[in-house]
Amino acid sequence: MIKEKEKFMQEALLEAKKAAALGEIPIGCVIVWRGQIIGRGHNLREQTKQTHDHAEMIAIAQANRFLNSWRLEETELYVTLEPCPMCSGAIINARIPKVYYGAPDEKAGTAGTLMNLLTDPRFNHRVKVQKGLLRRECALLLSDFFAKLRKK
Amino acid sequence: MIKEKEKFMQEALLEAKKAAALGEIPIGCVIVWRGQIIGRGHNLREQTKQTHDHAEMIAIAQANRFLNSWRLEETELYVTLEPCPMCSGAIINARIPKVYYGAPDEKAGTAGTLMNLLTDPRFNHRVKVQKGLLRRECALLLSDFFAKLRKK
Repeated sequence: MIKEKEKFMQEALLEAKKAAALGEIPIGCVIVWRGQIIGRGHNLREQTKQTHDHAEMIAIAQANRFLNSWRLEETELYVTLEPCPMCSGAIINARIPKVYYGAPDEKAGTAGTLMNLLTDPRFNHRVKVQKGLLRRECALLLSDFFAKLRKK
Repeated sequence: MIKEKEKFMQEALLEAKKAAALGEIPIGCVIVWRGQIIGRGHNLREQTKQTHDHAEMIAIAQANRFLNSWRLEETELYVTLEPCPMCSGAIINARIPKVYYGAPDEKAGTAGTLMNLLTDPRFNHRVKVQKGLLRRECALLLSDFFAKLRKK
C-alpha cells in the first residue's frame, strides 16, 4: 500500500515529467492543504524566461490564490529536488510548516546539503524537513534527462 | 552633485513610497542595465496576497521580460532594504553581478546581516554588495511607516 506522503510525491513527479516533456529540467512540486492538492508547479524557466519560474514558486503562487493569502500555514510542500535559496526563502516567507523533498541538490540545495535555511533559528519561521522521499525516482528522472541532453 | 548610483537609489525610494501609499511596508527596487532602468518594483504582498510579491522579485520579473532572459547579466540591482533569503536567492539565480542596498534588515537580511548568501562561495554565482547607500532615507521611510501604523 502506498502511503499518503508517497502519493503526493508521485504527484510532484508527474509535474516533473511535464517539465521534461517541454525540455525543462524535470523538477515538480505540489502543495497540500487538509489532504487536498491546492498548488502544483513544474520548472518552466526556459519557456517563460522568468528567473522565478521554479516548480516551488509556481506551486506557491497557485496555493496563494487558492487560500487568498500569502501565508500558507497548515500546508505541506512536496518537491522532487531539494530547494534552492530562492525557493527556500519563499517557503520561509509563506510560513509553510513542512517540506518533503526527493533528491538532494549538491549544487544549490539549501535544505540540508550546502546549508539549511529552512531550519535556521535566525529566521522568524522554521520548517520541518523530510529528505529522501522517493529519492531514487526523483534522482533518476534528473539523471535520465541530463544523459539524453548529453547525447544530443 | 548627485552621483549616478544615488540617483538610482532615489528611484528605488520613489518605488518604496508607492508601496507606502498603498499601506504596504515601503520597500522599493530598480534594476539598471547599461545606464537604463529596465525593471522597477515595490512591495505588493498585502494587495496581491502573493508570497513572492517583494519589490526585488517584481523588478526582476520586469527585467526578465525586457531582456527576454532569466539571466540578468550586466545589470545592477538597487533596493531600499537588505534582501530576504527569497530575494537573495533570486538575485543569485538571475546572475545579477552587483547589488546596492540602503537599510539593513535585522530580522531577515541575507546580504550581510544574518548571513551573506550573495557572496557565499558555495553557490555558482557571487554578487558584489554595497550596503548603506542612502541608508538614512531608506531607514526613515520604514520607521515612519511603522510609527504611523502603531498610532492607528
